[in-house]
Amino acid sequence: MTDTLAGGVGVWCGGEPGSGDGEFQGLLRAGTGIVEPVLREAVGRLHGSLASVCRYHLGWDGGDSRAPAVVRAGKRVRPALALLSVRAVGAPEGYAAVAGTAVELVHQLSLLHDDIMDGDTERRGRPTAWARFGTGAAVLAGDALVVQAVATIFHARAPGASAATEELISAVEQMVAGQAEDLALEHRCAHEVSVPGYVRMARGKTGALFGCAAALGAVLAQAPPTVVRALRGAGSDLGVAFQILDDVLGLWGDGALTGKPVGTDLVRGKKTLPLVLAAGSDSADGRRLAALLGPAPLPSAQVPEVMGLLEATRGRERAEEVAARHVASAVAALDAAELPADVRQQWHSLIDGLSQRRS
Amino acid sequence: MTDTLAGGVGVWCGGEPGSGDGEFQGLLRAGTGIVEPVLREAVGRLHGSLASVCRYHLGWDGGDSRAPAVVRAGKRVRPALALLSVRAVGAPEGYAAVAGTAVELVHQLSLLHDDIMDGDTERRGRPTAWARFGTGAAVLAGDALVVQAVATIFHARAPGASAATEELISAVEQMVAGQAEDLALEHRCAHEVSVPGYVRMARGKTGALFGCAAALGAVLAQAPPTVVRALRGAGSDLGVAFQILDDVLGLWGDGALTGKPVGTDLVRGKKTLPLVLAAGSDSADGRRLAALLGPAPLPSAQVPEVMGLLEATRGRERAEEVAARHVASAVAALDAAELPADVRQQWHSLIDGLSQRRS
Repeated sequence: MTDTLAGGVGVWCGGEPGSGDGEFQGLLRAGTGIVEPVLREAVGRLHGSLASVCRYHLGWDGGDSRAPAVVRAGKRVRPALALLSVRAVGAPEGYAAVAGTAVELVHQLSLLHDDIMDGDTERRGRPTAWARFGTGAAVLAGDALVVQAVATIFHARAPGASAATEELISAVEQMVAGQAEDLALEHRCAHEVSVPGYVRMARGKTGALFGCAAALGAVLAQAPPTVVRALRGAGSDLGVAFQILDDVLGLWGDGALTGKPVGTDLVRGKKTLPLVLAAGSDSADGRRLAALLGPAPLPSAQVPEVMGLLEATRGRERAEEVAARHVASAVAALDAAELPADVRQQWHSLIDGLSQRRS
Repeated sequence: MTDTLAGGVGVWCGGEPGSGDGEFQGLLRAGTGIVEPVLREAVGRLHGSLASVCRYHLGWDGGDSRAPAVVRAGKRVRPALALLSVRAVGAPEGYAAVAGTAVELVHQLSLLHDDIMDGDTERRGRPTAWARFGTGAAVLAGDALVVQAVATIFHARAPGASAATEELISAVEQMVAGQAEDLALEHRCAHEVSVPGYVRMARGKTGALFGCAAALGAVLAQAPPTVVRALRGAGSDLGVAFQILDDVLGLWGDGALTGKPVGTDLVRGKKTLPLVLAAGSDSADGRRLAALLGPAPLPSAQVPEVMGLLEATRGRERAEEVAARHVASAVAALDAAELPADVRQQWHSLIDGLSQRRS
């Protein structure tokens, strides 16, 4: 059993697993650094009560004097993608600030509302925003964020602002549809969900915004359509792989690192890819798993049995193989974009770093 | 005590109260007729599960075979305003379909999410969407609606589509800020809220989208800025008056007509204008009311006493006077827009009709 996706990914990227970790961390920091001031401006434009919710949710403050003032914020992967998007086409890095902010605002909306939808009371070791500020404030803060996202890109001072608005709207539409499909799949039996059905859902739920982040800076710069398409495709495939790794970490990751108790997805009836593959496998274990994973939530007591059946049917390895294929697709799309060598290397560091993430 | 706002409004509009009722109903029907096909297209673009939530919420179907297939839908005031917006500048009525759809989608989002925020389980005599389909589906359906709203106006085939997108984004920003202020006021004492503070909140929560509806068709047609400003101002003031009447109906209306149990706002701690005025009045009754209406929700048992004090302090009449002043402002703004006589008459019928509404 591989420990992460690194084995497969190392092959596709042609580098040593972990060799670009410094560059990966540097990219995340650079993305955050360029996006954060514009992100803070956008949040600062909100009604005071909603700005408080968002500052807390984004990890900028503790919401009151007793809570921790600084927490481990998210990874800000999408701002890093936005940075690579402008570097890919040699556009001004200021475009990355606007594009990365718009995409990050949408991502944060999705987290805020997801926590309400899932009834999750903890995120990153603290109460979720709705648990801390109430459902009303958190619903409304999410609404405010999506409007700020559109406003930010619509008002961008760039030749492609209008096309970028189109790109963002389309991504949010796809993201919401993907989330709806994810919810709908909770009420389906695992063996009724096909791998293409799962990938379609993941491409909406996670791939659409990754693709948008990867393309948006280039769209602002009015880069050639073939390049935009390649970047969007690479981002979208990377998003699907990211989602699959999320599924894997939710089952076999370290809850202390992911901030999510292992097995939560199982009990909730989420149709993660390892389950879909295992329940669809033509074996006695697969059929037993399919029988356990009906449309109703799984009783906690059955989690150990399900985990055992997942091992026996190689659900994890097979899911990782699907992820690796999407990573390969992303790399192929980037090759088609004919990036400058140094930017290509940065993209590979990002892909490699994301594939090896443990949280 | 006046029965409705009709007395004051008749004066401002220069007509007999109720004389234009047929024209008012005709305008609502015409607005609905022109907007509904585009609204249905927009809802039809959503993920199937979200489209189901929205169809039910909009009153188009019963959500399943047992629920009533047709219910009394909303009044669709905003589509009527959009229709008058294009008629004001002689633009194609097709612009009203797009503008009215965009605005109605935002309005429906606000209702969907409001019901979640307030924990309301009934709307128009049926379970609310979240009560029927779950919080997750209703949160997500609202997110989908706001994105569709922006997409609809952004893709409008009209010379002013870009300016109209700007207009809509700004209105949604103001609406969300107004809703946030409304929530924040729930935790304030009634006597601490000023009338200008209330009006600022109502101008955001309700006036912004009314103003947008009244202006958006003209913006699509690239009408002169002075006309757009006048229409937006008229709509905004009408929205404030509409909100005040909503407050009045919530306290003294017929629950069977409004679909909202009388006193709900009181118990929830909503700072409606009659309360604000009464609690701020310099009298023994006013001070008693201020003492009862602290930052905490009002116990149901105290509702009768509060209603008595509202009567004694003339909270209703004074609120209706403020509403009448905003109606007068709206009429003055329309006069400044120098509308064709027949369109001016239609605006007055709409204003008159809204002022006399009982639900």
